[in-house]
Amino acid sequence: MTDDPNIASKIITNDPWFGSYAQRAETMRASEIRALFAVANRPEVVSLAGGMPYLGRMPFDQLSEEIGRMLRDQGEKAWQYGSAQGDPHLREDVLPIMAMEGITNAQPDDVVIVNGSQSGLDLITRIMCNPGDVVLAEAPNYVGALGVFQSFQVDVVNVPMDADGLVPELLEETIKAQLAEGKHIKMLYTVPNFHNPAGVTMSRERRPKVLEIAKKYHILILEDNPYGLLGFDGQTYPALRSMDSENVVYLSSFSKIIAPGMRVAWMVAPPGIRQKLVLANESSILCPSNMSQMTITCYLDNFDWKAQISDYRNMYRERRDAMDGALREYLPSCSWNKPEGGFYIWLRIPDGLDAKAMLPRAITAKVAYVSGTAFYNDGNGKDHMRLSFCYPTPERIVEGVRRLAGVIDRELETINLFNDADAEPTSL
Amino acid sequence: MTDDPNIASKIITNDPWFGSYAQRAETMRASEIRALFAVANRPEVVSLAGGMPYLGRMPFDQLSEEIGRMLRDQGEKAWQYGSAQGDPHLREDVLPIMAMEGITNAQPDDVVIVNGSQSGLDLITRIMCNPGDVVLAEAPNYVGALGVFQSFQVDVVNVPMDADGLVPELLEETIKAQLAEGKHIKMLYTVPNFHNPAGVTMSRERRPKVLEIAKKYHILILEDNPYGLLGFDGQTYPALRSMDSENVVYLSSFSKIIAPGMRVAWMVAPPGIRQKLVLANESSILCPSNMSQMTITCYLDNFDWKAQISDYRNMYRERRDAMDGALREYLPSCSWNKPEGGFYIWLRIPDGLDAKAMLPRAITAKVAYVSGTAFYNDGNGKDHMRLSFCYPTPERIVEGVRRLAGVIDRELETINLFNDADAEPTSL
Repeated sequence: MTDDPNIASKIITNDPWFGSYAQRAETMRASEIRALFAVANRPEVVSLAGGMPYLGRMPFDQLSEEIGRMLRDQGEKAWQYGSAQGDPHLREDVLPIMAMEGITNAQPDDVVIVNGSQSGLDLITRIMCNPGDVVLAEAPNYVGALGVFQSFQVDVVNVPMDADGLVPELLEETIKAQLAEGKHIKMLYTVPNFHNPAGVTMSRERRPKVLEIAKKYHILILEDNPYGLLGFDGQTYPALRSMDSENVVYLSSFSKIIAPGMRVAWMVAPPGIRQKLVLANESSILCPSNMSQMTITCYLDNFDWKAQISDYRNMYRERRDAMDGALREYLPSCSWNKPEGGFYIWLRIPDGLDAKAMLPRAITAKVAYVSGTAFYNDGNGKDHMRLSFCYPTPERIVEGVRRLAGVIDRELETINLFNDADAEPTSL
Repeated sequence: MTDDPNIASKIITNDPWFGSYAQRAETMRASEIRALFAVANRPEVVSLAGGMPYLGRMPFDQLSEEIGRMLRDQGEKAWQYGSAQGDPHLREDVLPIMAMEGITNAQPDDVVIVNGSQSGLDLITRIMCNPGDVVLAEAPNYVGALGVFQSFQVDVVNVPMDADGLVPELLEETIKAQLAEGKHIKMLYTVPNFHNPAGVTMSRERRPKVLEIAKKYHILILEDNPYGLLGFDGQTYPALRSMDSENVVYLSSFSKIIAPGMRVAWMVAPPGIRQKLVLANESSILCPSNMSQMTITCYLDNFDWKAQISDYRNMYRERRDAMDGALREYLPSCSWNKPEGGFYIWLRIPDGLDAKAMLPRAITAKVAYVSGTAFYNDGNGKDHMRLSFCYPTPERIVEGVRRLAGVIDRELETINLFNDADAEPTSL
């Protein structure tokens, strides 16, 4: 940034296509998370920033055997174009996975395979939302969903959460207020289980209430559930989709229960919406990758995926415990909900600190996190940060929290110094 | 379809979300090609419809070895999230491929890996076009591009082609006419080499003229080049991008030169556009699949891909010759340009015939094609059909054309019968 007006205008007009872009592209910007990745990935930095699953225990030796066999036997199919709705074999394979969270009435024909959850969010927004339409969403909110909603010029209206997830009474209040303003509310976007970034889970009691309110106002629920099987005690919650097949579009992914590198996720939708999702999928990517889908089915068919999920649960519980313990030891001035599953702790930092402003100093101290501001579309969130415990080892997590505590302590000292200075009489 | 108004209205209002969709979703419909696939893929039908490359000669035994090795050595990377711009290794690997068509000044940083060409078309349209903006395009036009433009509510304006491709004079006339109407022209979409479906190639002489006109009116050229290396005599043409790096977005794909099942394509764009493409890619799919990208790099690094392309050329030339010969023998009443590369013959059928209306009778006679109407957005094209020679063996191609000739002959007989009846006095 510069104050020289000539240089500033040169920066702006440097792009000969400036002024030619679509409106929706004008507000596109790199997510705060993405901008961080380059530095946060340096080996000397303990990154508590990214949401990468830990894959170090995957049996790649055996996998390479099985995937090699799949390619020898079915290479022509794996390398060829496929169906826009997704491979029927995989659409069958996801049924028992969903049954673990109570979805027992879905058929393969209800399922659409998408290129990762991100693409699922993109497709449903594409078919449902005109510019200016409202999507209700939990705040804080998954950063990737915010990006999609922004790119379709959707008006995201926040609904508060507490330790039991979305608050039904506040949901209805928000709906009434939006309707009173004449807004078109198209969807309620929710991550009911082990929320990213908030770490909370919608209670069993609230689920039917949320469904009832959405139905009453004819608002589609978009249930995004990447973490539902990663409850640390093996506990699961009934999917919203398990209680209502007409008003819920369900989205889940293999990224966290197997691995994200194949970019395979799936949606379950009522027939009219499902039909449009298939057309939107075709328009967006022609068809999901057969190679990716068959890699997933090869894994599901040849490995004990339930044992793998159980292994993940144990590993992530151990890491959650490491982070929770280190926070108690090193950062008692912060507050947080101890998550019962998933990847994240949503840390409230001491009053007066600014998580976004502090980040460069944290990186200098070789620890990275994501500022809470990344998860709001309205500038809120500087009083929080998201700490991921999924990828680093427990030892690294403890070291990261120790470094973070050092940074926070120094910030507090600086603030206190200024406060003390304010309190003293000025002597010139 | 039914004439009972109650049933008709029931069909429409059957979807409880009817009336809730985005405007852009209202006009979405299955492409004529997609609707055909289910029947055309029956083994008893000779399909001259699909654009699937023939993969029967791929060395899947060796491939399974190499890809197995890649997974053993780099499984954690292959199965993990990657960069939104694409794997740097692959962005380096595409440079020598592009150099074969004269693009020698591109850098890995100019390249964005996308989830198949379809996604590339989606992303560039997303960042460039508001609803109502104009995209100029060759007519007939690639059906997948028409689907994307329609889904972004773009106004596609056709520019005529002849045997030498897009006609520069008519391009300029069309631009002037659109500007006179106050339209915003955002892009010129062109498939300069071995066009799908028209089979023609933009002549060397016309290329600088087209570039000059686009530059004069500050219209971005979207150069879609999936077939450029499949010239049957090994001939290549200088890419438009090789002559102008500022006004051309280049799109190419591994789908036809290796295989489509990985869904890997790439774009080269000027810096401002490239930056937005990366953001749009992130918003759309988060990141391309590492597994897919590394499968491609594994192939490029371990196999003689130039020999593979050469093998494809020979195979497709043989099939083109089989189709061209069979058409001469069985359908002399039709006309076509003998394509010098690519996958398709664009067949003009005798006057009075309707390729779309005739299709069910062709399927009954166990041969499938795509009606020319699929490649127009204005109802034109019933006087043409697209015949693909890429997938069936030469013997099957000949048999398919023989069956098609039977269908066309019977159609002509029926027409003549009616014409004769018209000519006779009516006797009641």
